[in-house]
Amino acid sequence: MHACICAALRLNGFPCKRPENVTADDFFSSALALPGNTGNPVGSAVTAANVEKLPGLNTLGVSMSRVDYAAWGVNPPHTHPRATEIIYVLEGSLDVGFVTTAGKLFARTVCKGELFVFPRGLIHYQKNNGGAPAMAISAFNSQLPGTQSLAKAMFGASPPVPTDVLARALQIDGGLVEAIKSKFPPK
Amino acid sequence: MHACICAALRLNGFPCKRPENVTADDFFSSALALPGNTGNPVGSAVTAANVEKLPGLNTLGVSMSRVDYAAWGVNPPHTHPRATEIIYVLEGSLDVGFVTTAGKLFARTVCKGELFVFPRGLIHYQKNNGGAPAMAISAFNSQLPGTQSLAKAMFGASPPVPTDVLARALQIDGGLVEAIKSKFPPK
Amino acid sequence: MHACICAALRLNGFPCKRPENVTADDFFSSALALPGNTGNPVGSAVTAANVEKLPGLNTLGVSMSRVDYAAWGVNPPHTHPRATEIIYVLEGSLDVGFVTTAGKLFARTVCKGELFVFPRGLIHYQKNNGGAPAMAISAFNSQLPGTQSLAKAMFGASPPVPTDVLARALQIDGGLVEAIKSKFPPK
Amino acid sequence: MHACICAALRLNGFPCKRPENVTADDFFSSALALPGNTGNPVGSAVTAANVEKLPGLNTLGVSMSRVDYAAWGVNPPHTHPRATEIIYVLEGSLDVGFVTTAGKLFARTVCKGELFVFPRGLIHYQKNNGGAPAMAISAFNSQLPGTQSLAKAMFGASPPVPTDVLARALQIDGGLVEAIKSKFPPK
Amino acid sequence: MHACICAALRLNGFPCKRPENVTADDFFSSALALPGNTGNPVGSAVTAANVEKLPGLNTLGVSMSRVDYAAWGVNPPHTHPRATEIIYVLEGSLDVGFVTTAGKLFARTVCKGELFVFPRGLIHYQKNNGGAPAMAISAFNSQLPGTQSLAKAMFGASPPVPTDVLARALQIDGGLVEAIKSKFPPK
Amino acid sequence: MHACICAALRLNGFPCKRPENVTADDFFSSALALPGNTGNPVGSAVTAANVEKLPGLNTLGVSMSRVDYAAWGVNPPHTHPRATEIIYVLEGSLDVGFVTTAGKLFARTVCKGELFVFPRGLIHYQKNNGGAPAMAISAFNSQLPGTQSLAKAMFGASPPVPTDVLARALQIDGGLVEAIKSKFPPK
Repeated sequence: MHACICAALRLNGFPCKRPENVTADDFFSSALALPGNTGNPVGSAVTAANVEKLPGLNTLGVSMSRVDYAAWGVNPPHTHPRATEIIYVLEGSLDVGFVTTAGKLFARTVCKGELFVFPRGLIHYQKNNGGAPAMAISAFNSQLPGTQSLAKAMFGASPPVPTDVLARALQIDGGLVEAIKSKFPPK
Repeated sequence: MHACICAALRLNGFPCKRPENVTADDFFSSALALPGNTGNPVGSAVTAANVEKLPGLNTLGVSMSRVDYAAWGVNPPHTHPRATEIIYVLEGSLDVGFVTTAGKLFARTVCKGELFVFPRGLIHYQKNNGGAPAMAISAFNSQLPGTQSLAKAMFGASPPVPTDVLARALQIDGGLVEAIKSKFPPK
Repeated sequence: MHACICAALRLNGFPCKRPENVTADDFFSSALALPGNTGNPVGSAVTAANVEKLPGLNTLGVSMSRVDYAAWGVNPPHTHPRATEIIYVLEGSLDVGFVTTAGKLFARTVCKGELFVFPRGLIHYQKNNGGAPAMAISAFNSQLPGTQSLAKAMFGASPPVPTDVLARALQIDGGLVEAIKSKFPPK
Repeated sequence: MHACICAALRLNGFPCKRPENVTADDFFSSALALPGNTGNPVGSAVTAANVEKLPGLNTLGVSMSRVDYAAWGVNPPHTHPRATEIIYVLEGSLDVGFVTTAGKLFARTVCKGELFVFPRGLIHYQKNNGGAPAMAISAFNSQLPGTQSLAKAMFGASPPVPTDVLARALQIDGGLVEAIKSKFPPK
Repeated sequence: MHACICAALRLNGFPCKRPENVTADDFFSSALALPGNTGNPVGSAVTAANVEKLPGLNTLGVSMSRVDYAAWGVNPPHTHPRATEIIYVLEGSLDVGFVTTAGKLFARTVCKGELFVFPRGLIHYQKNNGGAPAMAISAFNSQLPGTQSLAKAMFGASPPVPTDVLARALQIDGGLVEAIKSKFPPK
Repeated sequence: MHACICAALRLNGFPCKRPENVTADDFFSSALALPGNTGNPVGSAVTAANVEKLPGLNTLGVSMSRVDYAAWGVNPPHTHPRATEIIYVLEGSLDVGFVTTAGKLFARTVCKGELFVFPRGLIHYQKNNGGAPAMAISAFNSQLPGTQSLAKAMFGASPPVPTDVLARALQIDGGLVEAIKSKFPPK
């Protein structure tokens, strides 16, 4: 509780209440109660309950997300720069995997009631391996784990990552890089 | 992945595989798929997936538990010495609370799909506030958070905490302490 | 020294002086020079020199307390959510103990000039095992370790922990819980 | 020095010498004295001096790499899961950039004698912006920062990341994914 | 307690008992009960209770020392590379001080019952400012803080620090450096 | 990036920009591009690029310095209270060394292109072992490692460390201490 017992300023950059104003609601969230909208090209939606949404998490080092998957939907390859993730499947079953720094893929199917761990900072993905919606809850050992979708970061950054850098990295021609970039318009 | 890439020894006291022997299954658990047995005096059961059960968690700083509650069951006041907990309700609704070091109780009802945070080391509890079974998933920012049930630690330790210490702490007489101790036979 | 070299704001929620205003006195305390008042039901008094009293401790990760014990006085079972404690006996001798997460009590007598360690977050107590006053100094690896007296937290929280939760946890009837609560009026 | 003063075992998974056998050479490396071979598709080579090469780094939390760039060579987009990087240019000039978790690219040219910082876990790259070889030294706040080249991890993992996952992530067709995969044969 | 629950190996380089062999005595020390021998050129003696002496401290992050001072004795300028120190005076009064990285001395007299803080890694000293013996207890937020006496490290290292380096550093001639070295024969 | 995403306040005592005002330049420095002025009694100059100069380093845990050496110049014995250092030689060759807490000197020559590690908090030095200027780059695992030159801290602090303390520590007479002090006038 000490973390939030400070002046009407910000602590670690987040709002900090005076202790007499902190309530149980600062440690509560209903943000993960409803499914996200999976009507998008990848067929998945992540809803986060991190310190940006839940001020009581400040300095406590945990957060949670809900992931919804349309039939055959994919939570595309991404990293969390500041956290390990542990995912628990609530509905359906998922094909999940992560790639180690040695280039090895560790992958398997995780069914309802089972869990899987994605070590800190490593590239990972999940795919709904069924024709009905699936759902999972993920927990992180950071109050703000951050997420970098590899496709969006490489092809949709603003300003854009130079085309020649991506072409050389992927060993494809620049026109193809531009074509992929067109699918990821910067926000 | 580095953490488990070591000799056939132990790292932090836990088994450590050679990297060529690590598989995806070291990051997977089905231990939380089935309900625990809530046929006990408090009407709740905690099933843990920590580093003792899931070797891949070693050095990764996360773990998970499943809590099952009988009708009106209670997960009695306890602490986790090494972790903050974030709990997500999957079935039913819970009355939850924690006590701050200033002696303030932060409590509220948490329904299916909602979550609540118990800061590191603070005394907390959950109670199923309904007549049907309830269930929740808890995540921790430690691979081995540890649990101390206050009643068991005070009245069921082995060897026992001296009766006069407890009597003075609770301001009750020694006979009553002995009576409570009889409910918590040391293992 | 860097920790206190900041604007006239707060750092980690504590006051922070401009570097030109920091003096040796910010690293000094006489708060532990005099005995606390042990004229209370448990017969002990803890006087703390933590970051709330000693601003120079901010970010330095240490603090100290003095514990005074009346004849046969008890520092009742409690936890420090954020620190390991190391206690050094200055006067008299103490019966001390802590309970592990496996429910084992580690206890022994500690005499003048001897020390004992209470690992982070675990329930522990001390009892003056003599008829003269005793005194000890405790050090912590946190600038604000926090303290939760189990009796006060369970029976004297404000608002109160629900009686039925405590009755079920301790396996005693609600009337007895209420009787104990009456000994711990919330502040 | 304590870190390496242990039995003939391994500490954190790395070899650990008895203190009487540690010498100054355990804290020394000439591994970065010579250029790496940049005759490869991306035109760059990273030579690492981390704890795998330099046992004295164990527990000390630093490491270093040398990066050589052929004319117009690229160190393709990658992450370090466990470290922030600070790069200092010794020869030539580089176009460098990293992408934030908000999808913003921070990029600029860094010339000989200048430095740039890549925050922990974020995707970043460097490109030699000249027709002569370039060279830089990178330091990390980890003794084993780890590296994930995005192209290799996505298209060259072993076993491979499923084609349909990549196709959906990049919004390209599976045939194209296969074509890119063919450029990154698993080791 | 988990820290010591491992195989019959070493953890962090220190002996680690099987949990069934750990006892309360592993958390106890009488090493600080008796005064050290202050019959030496500086007139002070430090007796340490760190993890090398007290195995139960392993992973717990605290340790303690007793400092005895002859009349007018000095605990000469030194640093602790891995810990902040908090010192509590038990007998007599001390003139204490530390030097900041900005070259500022923070110094004052600390009497019986008072305490002072020496921030992590900074040069500090204590001097008994009276003609009777003095005594203090120091606590550290490290189980092995380490100590470097500046005089011994500079003039008594083995092999010796080169004379010309010291002469230039202190801006004295080499003969004088050699004369001071002769007072600090390497062990 | 999160670290700098806060209000127009200070974070850890350093300026913190609103996220919309952060630019690539906050992660860039040209401060190490030019040699420092080695025309001083020790014949060396350290130029630092730490968080005081480079705001983007805040919370990222790294920094860098450039060290220039005149012919036979010395970077005199000093410590960094908060960081391990890794040094890479760019020009010339250096005789380097550090002293362990056991009083052992680990020393050797480090030539152009080679590197050496100075563990956190330990006394170390470098000496240009040639008649031409030398240059090195040092990296630290702290954004503000701090530096204490032993000679300046002991003999040039303001107010001064008492002469009798230094005389006793070095076992020299007070007149000689005063003579050395006169070479290090407090700023």
